[in-house]
Amino acid sequence: MSASAENLANLTCPAPLATRDTVLLGHGSGGRLSGELVRNVFLPALGDPILGALEDQATFEIDGARLAFTTDSFVVKPLFFRGGDIGSLAVHGTINDLAVGGAEPLFLSAAFILEEGLPMETLRRVARSMGEAAAAASVRIVAADTKVVEKGSGDGLFINTTGIGRVRPGVKLSAANARPGDKVILSGYIGDHGIAILAEREGLQFDTPIGSDSAPLHTLTRAMLYTAGASIRAMRDPTRGGLASTLNEIAGRSKVTIEIEETAIPVREEVKGACEMLGLDPLHVANEGKLVAIVAAEAAEAIIEAMRRNPLGVDARVVGTVTGTGREMVLMRTAFGTTRIVDMLAGEQLPRIC
Amino acid sequence: MSASAENLANLTCPAPLATRDTVLLGHGSGGRLSGELVRNVFLPALGDPILGALEDQATFEIDGARLAFTTDSFVVKPLFFRGGDIGSLAVHGTINDLAVGGAEPLFLSAAFILEEGLPMETLRRVARSMGEAAAAASVRIVAADTKVVEKGSGDGLFINTTGIGRVRPGVKLSAANARPGDKVILSGYIGDHGIAILAEREGLQFDTPIGSDSAPLHTLTRAMLYTAGASIRAMRDPTRGGLASTLNEIAGRSKVTIEIEETAIPVREEVKGACEMLGLDPLHVANEGKLVAIVAAEAAEAIIEAMRRNPLGVDARVVGTVTGTGREMVLMRTAFGTTRIVDMLAGEQLPRIC
Repeated sequence: MSASAENLANLTCPAPLATRDTVLLGHGSGGRLSGELVRNVFLPALGDPILGALEDQATFEIDGARLAFTTDSFVVKPLFFRGGDIGSLAVHGTINDLAVGGAEPLFLSAAFILEEGLPMETLRRVARSMGEAAAAASVRIVAADTKVVEKGSGDGLFINTTGIGRVRPGVKLSAANARPGDKVILSGYIGDHGIAILAEREGLQFDTPIGSDSAPLHTLTRAMLYTAGASIRAMRDPTRGGLASTLNEIAGRSKVTIEIEETAIPVREEVKGACEMLGLDPLHVANEGKLVAIVAAEAAEAIIEAMRRNPLGVDARVVGTVTGTGREMVLMRTAFGTTRIVDMLAGEQLPRIC
Repeated sequence: MSASAENLANLTCPAPLATRDTVLLGHGSGGRLSGELVRNVFLPALGDPILGALEDQATFEIDGARLAFTTDSFVVKPLFFRGGDIGSLAVHGTINDLAVGGAEPLFLSAAFILEEGLPMETLRRVARSMGEAAAAASVRIVAADTKVVEKGSGDGLFINTTGIGRVRPGVKLSAANARPGDKVILSGYIGDHGIAILAEREGLQFDTPIGSDSAPLHTLTRAMLYTAGASIRAMRDPTRGGLASTLNEIAGRSKVTIEIEETAIPVREEVKGACEMLGLDPLHVANEGKLVAIVAAEAAEAIIEAMRRNPLGVDARVVGTVTGTGREMVLMRTAFGTTRIVDMLAGEQLPRIC
């Protein structure tokens, strides 16, 4: 759930009043409207302090065991895409929400909402993909559920995965922990997942086809924590809402200004091109196998070195700095030397991206 | 997930071949087709021994803590009904799957799939109901997620709840544990939830309106385990597929014959009447606040006494006996003194009952 969506009044293009009282696609964007929904509906109703902490995972103790717990539903469209499918994505997504909380993912549940008429072969293929993704990541799918809704009341197949992990001793990560001087590390190229899905939907062709970056990040986070656990303030995977929304969440929670360098942020030429063509900002496009970490400056180099030894971190680099407190915002020094404000995603850019 | 669905060849009314290859509403019934889906699609693909045990909850240890873990999606229609709503139902359902595994429910996640255009007030009302149900049961909703799908790709609101509980020391319940001589205890009247939903959908009127029995059963199971934990072989809540499907699952898993007495099974006159009118068998109608327990004969009386001191167990009674091994089936001595086979639900009776 996203945290730092600002007051609705900040929306540059406010929805007409009548639609305010209904759910909009933008409420699922991971951006401002998602944050508003959390703040105005879920937190007042469910009102739990752990939920209110707005991390990507809940952490608590049971009989001395320190556990992380996270849930995500997947409604991605289409079900199959270059680089993955809804099944592997559902496994990776929940593994990643545990991993960026400093937890070792252990057990997953999988719950399916099927639309009547879904080809059984589609379901088999998705289930196999989930089983393979879980096995490859050494996590176990131990609980499951299936519901079926009438034709026209669903859209083929939705999956919820919920995961439990063991939090590593001594680890205490939080989006509220960033402080001035900290470095912002990004693990690799951004925008691949969003553009891969969009290409699939719109039939876009690239010289070098873009595949989703969907991947389980727990071996990467393990290496980072092993190297310099005490120097890592926060980790997040910039999924819905993209890097911009994730950094804004951290800035908001930590009450700091984050400055990033446009030229430091790795974006593939094809992704850049597609974004230009479609009027998208790569900073708002979803990723499913990338992480951003806020780390103490003195540990940044060692952490990046450790990341680069992992296949999922070979392009890791520092992309910015926490520059001050008081003004909660994200700024970007552009390639032209100017500075612009990087906003959380407003409205909805690519519905059903995960 | 349901366990003992028999070979497809046993279906009295086989689906035409063409439809075998697509998902049918009956695959969500909790009956034979659900079992087939689990056996033919999910177990081969996900292939985990804990999942393969087919209990209503997974149990495992993390750092010495013995945990139970269960997931359920809720697609009930309509969202609000006499005696509850999708929100309270989603909280109670997951609490109950933990409770019947001998666990103390502690933490829940809540994941929402919203259809664009859902009135915000509907969502608020459901969220409030979840918060109240969780607070009343002393469980905490600590993780959440929201996705939005386009109008026409969902049906208002689906909720997944996944729960974690602490398994009580010494407790070892399993549907595979029933043995000859054991007694079958039922906690109260059956069929209320299914008929309440049906009444809502079809506009049925009763002299005494039937409300859903949706309720959290963990204080009842706690009392039972406290009284005679070592004598309880198995507990289940007979939801989708009703008492008949639950008893068939236990008979199948334990490889025993279970005999029940029609006259001992409490069914309200209004539920009986509605079932007769609509051609339903109350044994197949869903419950959301009832449990069935298989217990050692010598402990049955003490367990029932303990149950009757709990408001959710005042109508608890012995309704049957485990009579033998080898023939895995459920038999019922009818009010007329004859004996009939009680089958698992075949096909679908009441779609989207939970």
